[in-house]
Amino acid sequence: MHLVTLTWRSGVTNDDVVAVIEGLTSLPGQIPELLSYNFGPDLGLRDGNADFAVAAVLDSPEALPAYLDHPEHVRILKEFIAPLIATRQSVQIELPQETESSGTSS
Amino acid sequence: MHLVTLTWRSGVTNDDVVAVIEGLTSLPGQIPELLSYNFGPDLGLRDGNADFAVAAVLDSPEALPAYLDHPEHVRILKEFIAPLIATRQSVQIELPQETESSGTSS
Repeated sequence: MHLVTLTWRSGVTNDDVVAVIEGLTSLPGQIPELLSYNFGPDLGLRDGNADFAVAAVLDSPEALPAYLDHPEHVRILKEFIAPLIATRQSVQIELPQETESSGTSS
Repeated sequence: MHLVTLTWRSGVTNDDVVAVIEGLTSLPGQIPELLSYNFGPDLGLRDGNADFAVAAVLDSPEALPAYLDHPEHVRILKEFIAPLIATRQSVQIELPQETESSGTSS
């Protein structure tokens, strides 16, 4: 699972974020290695939160480049996301094999 | 979905991180609002990554306090996690109703 949290620079508008969402929405149809793909703006439930997050579940750790380095992903990053970023934290974690995106809640 | 990315202070040991993992592993059995719960150290696949991430899927945004403010979660945060943290970014995003943790990969 690939996770990213982002904070935006001051001055980022709702239209800027809509363009990010539209760009990311196009990716699952182009990248079959994405088993699940969730992203969006922070819901504003807690003070001090960052502004946006992405959570991508991939076939395997080896599938990460198929997503991260996909030309359309790279284009959306450069064109729509990078100009907005104040801070970015990215992590890849292993998921339990048997459950993939469904976790350990049993 | 509640997402957190963390970087650790210098000097954090493998034993410190094992204690975090053991603490978090105990939570799903105590917090039924956690529909899925994945966490772990960064796999080291990319330079510049943060050190640890948590991805929790909840019943609803309204269920967030049942997780975040659960006494056992608060204890583990204070005792095992907070002392290790250099930086922390937290975000809550909405998931598609029909798919919950399975995303938009179709």
